[in-house]
Amino acid sequence: MDFNNVTAHAVGNVYFDGKVVSHKITMEDGSAKTMGVIQPGSYHFDTVAAERMDITAGECKVTLDGSKESSVYKAGEYFNVDANSGFTIEVAEGNGQYVCSYL
Amino acid sequence: MDFNNVTAHAVGNVYFDGKVVSHKITMEDGSAKTMGVIQPGSYHFDTVAAERMDITAGECKVTLDGSKESSVYKAGEYFNVDANSGFTIEVAEGNGQYVCSYL
Repeated sequence: MDFNNVTAHAVGNVYFDGKVVSHKITMEDGSAKTMGVIQPGSYHFDTVAAERMDITAGECKVTLDGSKESSVYKAGEYFNVDANSGFTIEVAEGNGQYVCSYL
Repeated sequence: MDFNNVTAHAVGNVYFDGKVVSHKITMEDGSAKTMGVIQPGSYHFDTVAAERMDITAGECKVTLDGSKESSVYKAGEYFNVDANSGFTIEVAEGNGQYVCSYL
């Protein structure tokens, strides 16, 4: 998955002692995405804006806040997260990669 | 440090079990850069093309292959690496971030 005509921001975001690392890009229309890599483990993120999370590599198990069910998403699949909510994302082995689009 | 009008490649490069993670961008002129994050530790990289490494956050101690001396580079500083050579880069604490330009 490539994004053309974007502005790339060199300094990345580092979460959970580097277990999750992402780089932000700004699209032509001013909207933002982050491209991230998740090492094995379980991590909880809060949302402010609503998000679409596209899995681009590996496999992630996701539990949305307020849900008792988890779903597994593989490369090429995506899930949405409501604004002012959150989700737990787990990677069992290897690494999971994603593109997060702020909706 | 921002790069405009680039193509961003969503799937990142993962080295040393995720201790080093980078995302590649392609510039308007077709040249490539990677934007990376280094967790604490010591890592050796081989070069094929010559590289310019700009440190964008944190502090890295660098030893070029064939050199007995190390130098410390902080955000805003850079070093060059010859083609078909290599270097050892160490981060003591926090994280080090870089932009690697292929020359």
